[in-house]
Amino acid sequence: MPKPSITRESGRYFLTDRIRDEVDWWDTPQSRGVAPPPVQKPPAPGATIVPLPRPEEWRIPPCELVAALARRESRRRFLAAPLTLDELAFLLWGSQGVRQQLPEAAVFRTVPSAGCRHPFETYLAVLQVATLPSGIYRYLPLDHALVAVGAPADLAVRLTAAARGQRFAGEAAVTFLWTAIPGRTEWRYAEASYKVIALDAGHLCQNLYLACEAIGAGTCAIAAYNQELADQLLGVDGAEEFVVYLAPVGKVGGGRR
Amino acid sequence: MPKPSITRESGRYFLTDRIRDEVDWWDTPQSRGVAPPPVQKPPAPGATIVPLPRPEEWRIPPCELVAALARRESRRRFLAAPLTLDELAFLLWGSQGVRQQLPEAAVFRTVPSAGCRHPFETYLAVLQVATLPSGIYRYLPLDHALVAVGAPADLAVRLTAAARGQRFAGEAAVTFLWTAIPGRTEWRYAEASYKVIALDAGHLCQNLYLACEAIGAGTCAIAAYNQELADQLLGVDGAEEFVVYLAPVGKVGGGRR
Repeated sequence: MPKPSITRESGRYFLTDRIRDEVDWWDTPQSRGVAPPPVQKPPAPGATIVPLPRPEEWRIPPCELVAALARRESRRRFLAAPLTLDELAFLLWGSQGVRQQLPEAAVFRTVPSAGCRHPFETYLAVLQVATLPSGIYRYLPLDHALVAVGAPADLAVRLTAAARGQRFAGEAAVTFLWTAIPGRTEWRYAEASYKVIALDAGHLCQNLYLACEAIGAGTCAIAAYNQELADQLLGVDGAEEFVVYLAPVGKVGGGRR
Repeated sequence: MPKPSITRESGRYFLTDRIRDEVDWWDTPQSRGVAPPPVQKPPAPGATIVPLPRPEEWRIPPCELVAALARRESRRRFLAAPLTLDELAFLLWGSQGVRQQLPEAAVFRTVPSAGCRHPFETYLAVLQVATLPSGIYRYLPLDHALVAVGAPADLAVRLTAAARGQRFAGEAAVTFLWTAIPGRTEWRYAEASYKVIALDAGHLCQNLYLACEAIGAGTCAIAAYNQELADQLLGVDGAEEFVVYLAPVGKVGGGRR
């Protein structure tokens, strides 16, 4: 058997911050005066845009932070019930929503990101959300809207395959698939980008877990997925943009407990 | 200049899930029948143990989840005010607290962890917390208690140096320093462990951000730290256990907004 590309030594090294001492900080794109990549991937021309209810409009029931922390658990069994558009908008805002936009492309969100780089795009595989036709969508945080990306046949089957056969992905009302565009973070941090991109993905996923608790939904994040199938499902190139984390979301039994 | 140990190619690879196809799953410690590592590092014999107020005892003001999500921001300016032991206990519980303990070393916490491995230890550099003498402590999630680890001289100075000169670490009431014990995750996931450890660190840190909002405190996580100084400060070996993320916490101005 060939040796894996990641070893115990290189993997542990990756989790330290030793790389920061090795980066040539005078030679990063930022230091060289290169313009930063766009903070949001533009929608394809002519694509359908779906505006989402905003925080001042949506109806989300009150939820105590302590209760959300206490009752959050990994949930893989979902009711065959749809999410409302309010609920979906809330989950998107909670995990990647824009709080404040400043000049110089600094966009503050509901989650922190190293150097405010926010290297993610949020894709949704929608199976059961109110008025949204089933299909693949992408969140546009600057617009708080969705853009329709495609409507592949056999979406649930392909989702399950992309999740290495974990069936609850195909049984969810909606599955969040986060891609990274590593160039956004590399622009500033070069070879010190990769650990912080993974940390940042953890931040946003935790907010999704908690936001689910407010709407009687649940999730169980998936780090074990088939890279090629997941990238193909979204139509991303697998090099400059690729899937890093998944989270199927659905309503759960027992009401809001 | 020598080439960095992490390249654009190896770093991006690290963020994919391709490694899972390369692991020899028949040869992981779990598959070989090796017992899992302890879920909590035992305290040194004779060390001082400080029990913490439990959820049913502490007084933490109510806080709406949506409000916590909306107003969370990176905070680097702290008031010269102490945290109470209730507040500290709440932050520890929110980020690493045990919700439920099952047989077979499965411990469910307020944050998810890949394969329920929970590879972290939480250290605190306490500068201003109620009745706790300044020093280094470690959280014992199974006991919901602290163990005193040491009381280095010039703690604030050493913290600032460990944070590569970021002064707010030395100005915080308490700085959280999370170490990873990668062996806990490697037991199950072998070479596929490292990305999920970083994701898991992001999960717990996000809960700390939100929990801070409930108590009029704030944090700004630090991924840019000096590995050797941080490890030395805690007295960990830098190989089987090493610092992966820091978060200085202090009270912030403007009340709870």
